[in-house]
Amino acid sequence: MTAISEQAVAKFVEGIRAPEEARRTHARSYLDTLTKPLGSLGRLEDLAAQIAAIRPEFPTLPLSKAVYVFAADHGVTAEGVSAYPSAVTQQMVFNFLNGGAAVSVLSRAHDVELHVVDVGVDADFADDTGLLHRKVCRGTRNMLHVRAMTDEQLARALEVGAELAEDAAVAGHTLLAVGEMGIGNTTSASAITSALTGSPAALATGRGTGLDAEAHRRKIAMVGAILQKHFLVKGSPSPLRILSCVGGLEIAAITGMVLVAARHRIAIVIDGFISTAAAALAVALCPDVRGYLIAGHRSEEPGHQLLLDYLGLTPVLTLEMRLGEGSGAVLAMPIIESAIALYSQMATFASAGVNEASA
Amino acid sequence: MTAISEQAVAKFVEGIRAPEEARRTHARSYLDTLTKPLGSLGRLEDLAAQIAAIRPEFPTLPLSKAVYVFAADHGVTAEGVSAYPSAVTQQMVFNFLNGGAAVSVLSRAHDVELHVVDVGVDADFADDTGLLHRKVCRGTRNMLHVRAMTDEQLARALEVGAELAEDAAVAGHTLLAVGEMGIGNTTSASAITSALTGSPAALATGRGTGLDAEAHRRKIAMVGAILQKHFLVKGSPSPLRILSCVGGLEIAAITGMVLVAARHRIAIVIDGFISTAAAALAVALCPDVRGYLIAGHRSEEPGHQLLLDYLGLTPVLTLEMRLGEGSGAVLAMPIIESAIALYSQMATFASAGVNEASA
Repeated sequence: MTAISEQAVAKFVEGIRAPEEARRTHARSYLDTLTKPLGSLGRLEDLAAQIAAIRPEFPTLPLSKAVYVFAADHGVTAEGVSAYPSAVTQQMVFNFLNGGAAVSVLSRAHDVELHVVDVGVDADFADDTGLLHRKVCRGTRNMLHVRAMTDEQLARALEVGAELAEDAAVAGHTLLAVGEMGIGNTTSASAITSALTGSPAALATGRGTGLDAEAHRRKIAMVGAILQKHFLVKGSPSPLRILSCVGGLEIAAITGMVLVAARHRIAIVIDGFISTAAAALAVALCPDVRGYLIAGHRSEEPGHQLLLDYLGLTPVLTLEMRLGEGSGAVLAMPIIESAIALYSQMATFASAGVNEASA
Repeated sequence: MTAISEQAVAKFVEGIRAPEEARRTHARSYLDTLTKPLGSLGRLEDLAAQIAAIRPEFPTLPLSKAVYVFAADHGVTAEGVSAYPSAVTQQMVFNFLNGGAAVSVLSRAHDVELHVVDVGVDADFADDTGLLHRKVCRGTRNMLHVRAMTDEQLARALEVGAELAEDAAVAGHTLLAVGEMGIGNTTSASAITSALTGSPAALATGRGTGLDAEAHRRKIAMVGAILQKHFLVKGSPSPLRILSCVGGLEIAAITGMVLVAARHRIAIVIDGFISTAAAALAVALCPDVRGYLIAGHRSEEPGHQLLLDYLGLTPVLTLEMRLGEGSGAVLAMPIIESAIALYSQMATFASAGVNEASA
């Protein structure tokens, strides 16, 4: 019997193809004709070539940009893994909607549509808030003792993200960012990182929103116990098993969004530790997704670098941020757009009448 | 007898005061009230606090931004230190003015006024190009054999930058970037770096616009010979002596601009290796200037990191760029503006009704 979540994923991944390497090669050749020393735009050249490989037609500016922030609660907060109470998930959803959160400010500043999605917050929201109501259930169960979610819940959470990616494609967005809010979700991300990469809990577990040394030690022990409970059997657990055991509903939704955005050839800017964990699961489910990912920044959470290494991604920004919400992903968007502008608008040596380098 | 350049600098530095630490401390306290874990915006918090310390009143958005690109030629190009012919300096000036260069594209993309300044290009330009005509002379002399410029030329180049900084202050610009164009000027920057920091030529000398290994070895030997010619006497040469011996006219102009911008309490975003060398000389002339500098990015030129260490600056971006022109400085501007937007527009825990972390 195939699990419902597997059936859902099989549908999402159908038709995903890796970005087109021939277009990347062509873009690199074109970049070499522009009025600058060869390769001197560094990572901006990589980004422009990646966008060229992803999109059938090189996008025009301004891009149509959107960020999806998925919010959900976590049963494991009962174990005291966070410096903040669970109620903050709901409070921050209001803050996103009211424009006062970091991701709200950055989205306004950089002309990015902000979509806030309740995929599993342990609270009721009124209809008229602008929130996207996609609640699967009121938070996960405590993964220290049981699977965080049932297979049905996992399938629905994946579908929430997948359907919003469909909507984003219909809306014509050409660049997506993903973010999250969920008190307790660095514990999920740490467990996912260990389960995916084999790194020990001590390396994959950081201080989250700001634990002291003692609380950090307890959190490492907690992640170790969670891994032991769910993944004691030798061998690598499947991505869907990892998600249902330790993943948050918001993490599953991001995984679904990443898969379907890749199918629509939309570049996806991932944010920090948690959204990168979700993207890593998407890549584990379908390796061709990898080429659609842009790492917006490198978080200060130590597990984030493990995931970036696992994915082979170099972050656009390294600003010592550790906030989540999609803030680092949105902040990378003006840099990505700059790369596209340079590719589209710079003169060539020939058109500008500039001498090339001597051999 | 005081040299003319010393008299000029004495005038520029009069009235420069370090940024106000009390305002920085207040800004840091305010940042701690915003709806985010303490310190979780990382370097963005440093930037916001720096701007608060610099400006008597915290700036409103959008900032009034300008980049000044100073162009000049270098007599040392006769020694074959660059992969490009000297004529490219002039050609690139046209490219800046015609909108096809990287800094032109980035300035348009990020709403930054672009000013191109001829401070010493070895070519004549028509009056109607939009160029700022401030030519001191048609390039420096060959520093391998003689001082690159006379004291009068140095004083005039410093004044060009200083006067444009006055103009920028009058125009109400709240954020300045500096950039340069001058075939051969990484050789000057390497010599300045060695003279200022004591680092050997081999560490301070990179491949510039793209030398091969053999040409790189020759360039290192050339910088060594230049240092030996001008700075053989024990002890540290003065910043003005360094400038007149090996500096370019564009480098001196940037030094003058940095000094006077600091006097006007305008934050200055420095770019790559060459403009950072100019800023380092400004700091050597007046240490209180340091707090006005923002390192836009870290260039791939190895000497740039030596200068950033000398200045104690952490770059905003690390994108493996090595283009100059002010490109990395302009690209950092949307990040700096984002830091200001977050400071100005985020909700506080109290205003948003969000619980703070437990102690």
